[in-house]
Amino acid sequence: MEFQEVIQRRHSIRSFLEKEIESEKIETIISLTNLAPSAGNLQAYEVFVIKNEELKRKLASAAYSQSFIQEAPVVFVFFADPERSASRYGSRGRQLYSLQDATIACTFAMLSAAALGLGSCWVGAFNDEEVKRICGVKKKVPIAILPVGYPKESGYPTSRRPIAEKFHVLE
Amino acid sequence: MEFQEVIQRRHSIRSFLEKEIESEKIETIISLTNLAPSAGNLQAYEVFVIKNEELKRKLASAAYSQSFIQEAPVVFVFFADPERSASRYGSRGRQLYSLQDATIACTFAMLSAAALGLGSCWVGAFNDEEVKRICGVKKKVPIAILPVGYPKESGYPTSRRPIAEKFHVLE
Repeated sequence: MEFQEVIQRRHSIRSFLEKEIESEKIETIISLTNLAPSAGNLQAYEVFVIKNEELKRKLASAAYSQSFIQEAPVVFVFFADPERSASRYGSRGRQLYSLQDATIACTFAMLSAAALGLGSCWVGAFNDEEVKRICGVKKKVPIAILPVGYPKESGYPTSRRPIAEKFHVLE
Repeated sequence: MEFQEVIQRRHSIRSFLEKEIESEKIETIISLTNLAPSAGNLQAYEVFVIKNEELKRKLASAAYSQSFIQEAPVVFVFFADPERSASRYGSRGRQLYSLQDATIACTFAMLSAAALGLGSCWVGAFNDEEVKRICGVKKKVPIAILPVGYPKESGYPTSRRPIAEKFHVLE
């Protein structure tokens, strides 16, 4: 799909068809996400790609019962790796860069899914400790859950605040 | 440009031609960035689009003399708006969502620039207080500087850690 079309058509999808995602598409999302830039190329993030029904059910529960998470055939969970970034950059790595590395990677996954005709929804509200337990992670920090699947409804892009409210040009 | 090509070809550019960016291209980057998703659609971020030579020189200085910043014809500066997000989401909005909103927006800008044949480089190392002063901002937090221009050198994508180190599939 053409880049601008991906950006312009993408919007949150919270309802998925009961249809598997082809494994090549999952591999494409993973390999494109792997190209995300990161501070010092440390790639201070990790991703869990969850297809297991029981784990998806637990994730939905950890996300305050957002049940569409368990309906998605694949759920990506993004973790920041603060200590990896702190080892080179100290507190700025721990508090900013690692979180950005993981956030940029999740953005790449979200857009890659859209480019493949899949829908997703960025979920930020969840119990961090529960998500860590579900994925068997101790020292990393979960920063986003991204359920991905074929959209059940086409939905529509939400509107945005006027550009002039957020963008300031200084000539 | 095709989406996957943008992702696969994009890499950091730290050397720019002395060539203006067409204003339509800057407007396209802005309007595509404006479509970035955000927690609760609050869009808790602001962007300064800086063309002024003196301000670019000051930004390069605030970024510990990364002089390629002032060589770029346009420099985007992304700020998180923690209080905007905190007004609905409390500390999670202040500490996580607003930072993610701004980071997702910067990722959209970086990729949009690449799709238009422009180069950029995500800069994270700078003195926050100096950047705030240069942009005349008080309560927002700078999270990235993105110089954009026509690439002087073609460069090459950097390598990444093996996928299996970062991605864990749970079936």
